[in-house]
Amino acid sequence: MNQKLLLQWISQKQVVVPVFLIENYAKLGLNEQDFACVLQVQSFIEQGEPFPTPDRLSERMSLTTSECAALMGGLVKKGYLSLDKQWDQHGILYEYYSLDPLWEKLCSFIQSEETKGVEKEEEENAA
Amino acid sequence: MNQKLLLQWISQKQVVVPVFLIENYAKLGLNEQDFACVLQVQSFIEQGEPFPTPDRLSERMSLTTSECAALMGGLVKKGYLSLDKQWDQHGILYEYYSLDPLWEKLCSFIQSEETKGVEKEEEENAA
Amino acid sequence: MNQKLLLQWISQKQVVVPVFLIENYAKLGLNEQDFACVLQVQSFIEQGEPFPTPDRLSERMSLTTSECAALMGGLVKKGYLSLDKQWDQHGILYEYYSLDPLWEKLCSFIQSEETKGVEKEEEENAA
Amino acid sequence: MNQKLLLQWISQKQVVVPVFLIENYAKLGLNEQDFACVLQVQSFIEQGEPFPTPDRLSERMSLTTSECAALMGGLVKKGYLSLDKQWDQHGILYEYYSLDPLWEKLCSFIQSEETKGVEKEEEENAA
Repeated sequence: MNQKLLLQWISQKQVVVPVFLIENYAKLGLNEQDFACVLQVQSFIEQGEPFPTPDRLSERMSLTTSECAALMGGLVKKGYLSLDKQWDQHGILYEYYSLDPLWEKLCSFIQSEETKGVEKEEEENAA
Repeated sequence: MNQKLLLQWISQKQVVVPVFLIENYAKLGLNEQDFACVLQVQSFIEQGEPFPTPDRLSERMSLTTSECAALMGGLVKKGYLSLDKQWDQHGILYEYYSLDPLWEKLCSFIQSEETKGVEKEEEENAA
Repeated sequence: MNQKLLLQWISQKQVVVPVFLIENYAKLGLNEQDFACVLQVQSFIEQGEPFPTPDRLSERMSLTTSECAALMGGLVKKGYLSLDKQWDQHGILYEYYSLDPLWEKLCSFIQSEETKGVEKEEEENAA
Repeated sequence: MNQKLLLQWISQKQVVVPVFLIENYAKLGLNEQDFACVLQVQSFIEQGEPFPTPDRLSERMSLTTSECAALMGGLVKKGYLSLDKQWDQHGILYEYYSLDPLWEKLCSFIQSEETKGVEKEEEENAA
């Protein structure tokens, strides 16, 4: 092994996943394939490829291209992923995925759990 | 919403996932359920719970307890996860999972890809 | 170089630093030595050493033990770092540092910036 | 406080710092200002701004523009930071900073420590 490999590793990108998402994706209605797909999309976005095709996802997942297409379609339909458009600085229109809808759902979920926790505590104090 | 929630978020733990793993888990022979299980185990370990039971995993995944047990058993059997034992500072024997076998596999895989790339380059230069 | 080194690197811990902190530590009243000290303390806490001594910090910083003691004392005094006590599961009292006060300050700062931004926008719309 | 702030926080970028760097920057010859400057540059690069000016750094640090210029100049001179040039896809030449020289130094340092450790062990076994 050479030093080049270690350097590659040292300077590689990392994807940071909030523990809140790992703990709660199933409660949000995602299964393991959805969750893995979300991390793939996040990874592509952070590497400057904000509109990965099902083909690109299939290269990295244990699923076929059409299974990846169905998975991404499902995430868009259920409101976890959005497909947006924007003009870049050179006047070219480009499409990109955004995970903001997922973060919004996670945010609302955590708030509702918080509220439930407070109500439960108040009930117990009242009893 | 109150400040407590934002603080919780700010001070929460994050799980750092190497892009190399996201790109290559399928090539290593893991499917999406295996991959999600690996992240769950990593998350438990980092939160000071190095021996999560199938019950604990099931609370966070879209799978039943027995499905989680089968998933973890498979990861141990296929050599991605090991179950080790150690004495703590108070003389109590405890069991814990380690993901070192997975990192070793990933490490060997990247090295072999590297070698393949170099050989291919040499062939092209020789041609 | 051997594979052991790459493995060490792959399985090493990482410290995740919010971009909000990197962008705003100076506006919060911290200088570069304070900021580096905060990351050292966070790193020690995450490695299971929640009460690092000035000696331990000095091993990793470009400062003497007494400079590290002064730096940590300053962070406690200015309310960025707190020194708390807790009983562990074996009934032993232990001391530990907490960065919660810093996160609270950062949280308040971001909220006040947010408010200023909204007010400025309203003024501009009213004008 | 509104949900927008929490969302901003959730979807914000994070900078991942290897514990190896936190533990060894001083041994590599960096002081706390150098280390903070490195994290600033890494943060700018990851946010798509690979050529931050001393002005931009000064906005986020407790230092003046000329102090930041001296700091960055020093890092380039001592071989921790390099200033490279590249053509983008639209044929425009742009300059960017790279932290690869720092990772190379860190890599060599860890290897030499490793070697020292092995030699020490062999001496002890021989004695």
